[in-house]
Amino acid sequence: MAQRGVLRPGFVQICVLDMEKAITHYRDHMGLELVGIEADGRAYFKGYDEFDRHSIVLREADAPGMDVLAFKVYADEELDSFEKRLNDMGVTTTAVAVGEQPSVGRRVRFETPTGHVFDLYAEMALSENGPMVTNPDLWREEPKAMRIQRFDHCALVGINIVGAANIFTEALDFTIVERAIIPDSGEPVAIFLTCSNKAHDIAFLGNPDNDGKLHHVSFNLESWTDIGHAADLISRYNISLDIGPTRHGITQGQTIYFFDPSGNRNETFAGGYSHYPDNPVREWTVDQMGKAIFYYEKEVHGRFVEVFT
Amino acid sequence: MAQRGVLRPGFVQICVLDMEKAITHYRDHMGLELVGIEADGRAYFKGYDEFDRHSIVLREADAPGMDVLAFKVYADEELDSFEKRLNDMGVTTTAVAVGEQPSVGRRVRFETPTGHVFDLYAEMALSENGPMVTNPDLWREEPKAMRIQRFDHCALVGINIVGAANIFTEALDFTIVERAIIPDSGEPVAIFLTCSNKAHDIAFLGNPDNDGKLHHVSFNLESWTDIGHAADLISRYNISLDIGPTRHGITQGQTIYFFDPSGNRNETFAGGYSHYPDNPVREWTVDQMGKAIFYYEKEVHGRFVEVFT
Amino acid sequence: MAQRGVLRPGFVQICVLDMEKAITHYRDHMGLELVGIEADGRAYFKGYDEFDRHSIVLREADAPGMDVLAFKVYADEELDSFEKRLNDMGVTTTAVAVGEQPSVGRRVRFETPTGHVFDLYAEMALSENGPMVTNPDLWREEPKAMRIQRFDHCALVGINIVGAANIFTEALDFTIVERAIIPDSGEPVAIFLTCSNKAHDIAFLGNPDNDGKLHHVSFNLESWTDIGHAADLISRYNISLDIGPTRHGITQGQTIYFFDPSGNRNETFAGGYSHYPDNPVREWTVDQMGKAIFYYEKEVHGRFVEVFT
Amino acid sequence: MAQRGVLRPGFVQICVLDMEKAITHYRDHMGLELVGIEADGRAYFKGYDEFDRHSIVLREADAPGMDVLAFKVYADEELDSFEKRLNDMGVTTTAVAVGEQPSVGRRVRFETPTGHVFDLYAEMALSENGPMVTNPDLWREEPKAMRIQRFDHCALVGINIVGAANIFTEALDFTIVERAIIPDSGEPVAIFLTCSNKAHDIAFLGNPDNDGKLHHVSFNLESWTDIGHAADLISRYNISLDIGPTRHGITQGQTIYFFDPSGNRNETFAGGYSHYPDNPVREWTVDQMGKAIFYYEKEVHGRFVEVFT
Repeated sequence: MAQRGVLRPGFVQICVLDMEKAITHYRDHMGLELVGIEADGRAYFKGYDEFDRHSIVLREADAPGMDVLAFKVYADEELDSFEKRLNDMGVTTTAVAVGEQPSVGRRVRFETPTGHVFDLYAEMALSENGPMVTNPDLWREEPKAMRIQRFDHCALVGINIVGAANIFTEALDFTIVERAIIPDSGEPVAIFLTCSNKAHDIAFLGNPDNDGKLHHVSFNLESWTDIGHAADLISRYNISLDIGPTRHGITQGQTIYFFDPSGNRNETFAGGYSHYPDNPVREWTVDQMGKAIFYYEKEVHGRFVEVFT
Repeated sequence: MAQRGVLRPGFVQICVLDMEKAITHYRDHMGLELVGIEADGRAYFKGYDEFDRHSIVLREADAPGMDVLAFKVYADEELDSFEKRLNDMGVTTTAVAVGEQPSVGRRVRFETPTGHVFDLYAEMALSENGPMVTNPDLWREEPKAMRIQRFDHCALVGINIVGAANIFTEALDFTIVERAIIPDSGEPVAIFLTCSNKAHDIAFLGNPDNDGKLHHVSFNLESWTDIGHAADLISRYNISLDIGPTRHGITQGQTIYFFDPSGNRNETFAGGYSHYPDNPVREWTVDQMGKAIFYYEKEVHGRFVEVFT
Repeated sequence: MAQRGVLRPGFVQICVLDMEKAITHYRDHMGLELVGIEADGRAYFKGYDEFDRHSIVLREADAPGMDVLAFKVYADEELDSFEKRLNDMGVTTTAVAVGEQPSVGRRVRFETPTGHVFDLYAEMALSENGPMVTNPDLWREEPKAMRIQRFDHCALVGINIVGAANIFTEALDFTIVERAIIPDSGEPVAIFLTCSNKAHDIAFLGNPDNDGKLHHVSFNLESWTDIGHAADLISRYNISLDIGPTRHGITQGQTIYFFDPSGNRNETFAGGYSHYPDNPVREWTVDQMGKAIFYYEKEVHGRFVEVFT
Repeated sequence: MAQRGVLRPGFVQICVLDMEKAITHYRDHMGLELVGIEADGRAYFKGYDEFDRHSIVLREADAPGMDVLAFKVYADEELDSFEKRLNDMGVTTTAVAVGEQPSVGRRVRFETPTGHVFDLYAEMALSENGPMVTNPDLWREEPKAMRIQRFDHCALVGINIVGAANIFTEALDFTIVERAIIPDSGEPVAIFLTCSNKAHDIAFLGNPDNDGKLHHVSFNLESWTDIGHAADLISRYNISLDIGPTRHGITQGQTIYFFDPSGNRNETFAGGYSHYPDNPVREWTVDQMGKAIFYYEKEVHGRFVEVFT
């Protein structure tokens, strides 16, 4: 049946240290559309193939990191049932008022044991600059810079990732698509979950010492060619590269990682398999973590597992 | 919430005039895996990125065309509820016994007013040669020839396409993603429906004179580069080209069409947008049908709207 | 030894009916750099990866077509020896004065029996916006629109193409790379010549009724992906498409053809083989002309062999 | 004028420790055609788009490395004039007899002050499996594995690279295309030379402690997509990766490096600019060496400048 309930990661609010530099990065170097800057100073962005008004929100702050990751659900009435299911699991919810962000409806907020904050919402205005719907062209204006189609997902770092993932599977009907485990104990060190046909809509990365951290915010590109083009731009604009172009073993996505001027890690990726709920769960043992994360290099550099915001 | 109910087009059974030539085409020139040939002469195939045992079934017959298009549903018990909903709409259902195809469970069969036969089923054995699941590599063996990831969808030709589409939306929870209409009457001349995040899982093309016909069977490739590569193979192996490489306005997919040795139209395509049920329906007026179908050529050649099987 | 003598097609001067529309086409829709508009109204353009000041010159005129195709030679003194060799063959030469175009040195002009005008020149100023040479980045500014690397070649239509080709092989040291012939007579109907490692630097297409005509002006793109992107732009901007994306049998280039607002045919192409002078000449028989020209379609539409400027 | 004199790197003879493992690597994993194994145990290979009989020769030996890099010249009589020019520079030449390799004509051998051995030859039989020349298809058989078009060039490590480069520019008419220098002294630390329109046909990399060493043998692929595909194969077949997929600042080529089972470094690359002898020389200062070599990473890992064969 057509997808219902949680549809996708709808927007993420990120903290940046210097808004001017951040706008240069996200608008000029990455090519996102700057939808607007509101009175409270927050800046709103979207990718060229997104219907909703915005998907990235930047807030100037003293430290980088993620304020909240919000999932869009299909219908307003589902917010109530999800809230009940969260509460039934013992997860506390709070309300975020309509209007806290422009054009966004009421939001149900909860926190995972990893210390990350999530919202569920069902309403956001359509963008005036979204995909055409009547005798539509491929796009209104040629996609710019990194040619970002959409905000895609976040990967988050924390201690109790099993507890966090359980909330998504039990209360929000997410499916575990892929995970990495310690063979003897079966304990997961990384869990990738989906609410759609995507290989992942959210990922939790286990870490004994860090909770509530953002590993990366990810954006979808059309192709491996666009990954290469993003690499060209990263070098041209002296953006701080983390790693890539490369491919993930997990999800099989083709990827490149870099940092925004505040130190938040960005990913642009393409490809990866489609997921169906009748597919087997794919599983990695922790000794193969290098290949799981970077399929070509087969090893993970320190920065990737040590630098979070 | 994770996808439930109808998941995807699971397999299609196609009639071919000469099995030997058909195997050369589908296995050697297109690169599908030949899973096996059963005692009744039917040949079973799959793409390299499919978990289930088979997705294409060829039956030798006196005329080309499609016997049946079967959709996989998530759970066996859903077959009963879908059957009830079909019956409640006045759609007659029949049972196809377990074992009619190797490894496939019970099937609920129904026919649309366009004269096409569809099955719903919930069980098929996993392929021994499907994607790896433990410390998985990208593929077991390098994808061959056209590098087909999966069977993707069918487009079907008939008179009462509104009646056919209604069955899919009302009884099977499909969503209309895109359609072409006659402006004055609002009458649809083409309807594209999905049960997933794909831009289409099935399409109905209106035709005043032809019912129960197959327009094309479509296969998913990774990229525009693979579309070009398919074109190279089509020319090298003297496969009968219909049109392409080109792009669709509808779905935005990049595509090439050709004919199997029996005259059944095949499509290999890549790209196209992802669909979410909160997206607006995209609509074309019939005067823009050229651009809707072939975004580059902006016109449709006669063969494309006259040759079916 | 390193290439000497004739290096490459250096610039072409094209007639357009409406300069404003032409600038929109060549600058905004194709993405060439507009170097400048001179006092006599001519507009000068270049691709992003060209060192010299300009490679395309547009002149407003009452009819479309090509004024002159100019080849750059390595050294000024070679102009004299080429002129002598031309004269020795009975080919009349005239001088074009320094300054007829900004920054271009003296030019030796001659005409082929097909009625086409060619110049040889050795000097043009370097562009201030050419590729970087000290600790160079990939490009100064991101390539725009169709991402044209360089003006590449012209294909010209005429009656006595053997006579025209002879001038290039005998007086200018070009090599015939590929040709199409009438099997019984051996008479060529198309001749592709190079002065470099490119599969072609100029092509002559035989036609019994048309002399001195331009078939197309061709621009080099990086990849098949960029051909697809050019197609997207062609459709988006309602540029008149001739054919493509497709591939040539001759040269193996991947290509798309379209018309500028004055009716001059443009090509953007990518790929094709590299040529070395010890390679065999590739030869097509006229019955395979369809495949020779359009490797996928295996037939040539009337417009392609009937519409010239 | 059409290229004369030295045309291209024609073949290279490489030492391998275990021929069986080497054949698995070069034939099965890289996809080169194994032309044959001769009585003396040497194995001959070629890429799918090469006309000549072979371009890679493997010899089983106790240590890896390069025996000889041979350049093909246009005409036999040019061998004499090149020999004279070499001798006039004080470079000793010796003759390698016809038949030392199957189907190869006489060779003029010389050594650079860096201790590398080079041959010049004008004759080699055409492959029976080279590109088609009459009504040609794109290829006879679909390119295999890494889809290698041709052997492209070698990069060699030595102390007196200026002396080595001088032989190529003064006696063999090569052009310096790009170089890296120490700013104060102007001393080159890397010199890239061409005898064609390629960005490089040979490269010398300066090293204070190593002479006569092979840095890498390089093969040309069609596109960035094929670089990514090579990376997929490298990981799938557990080939030892050095670095990539990435891009060079020098030449702008897109590249991936890996090791054959004997430790010889291989490169597969695509793209990069075309060179003309009127182009300015591009120059890097040694402080930008990271970006010069790996345009994305902007730093060079130790293995790349320490491991040679």
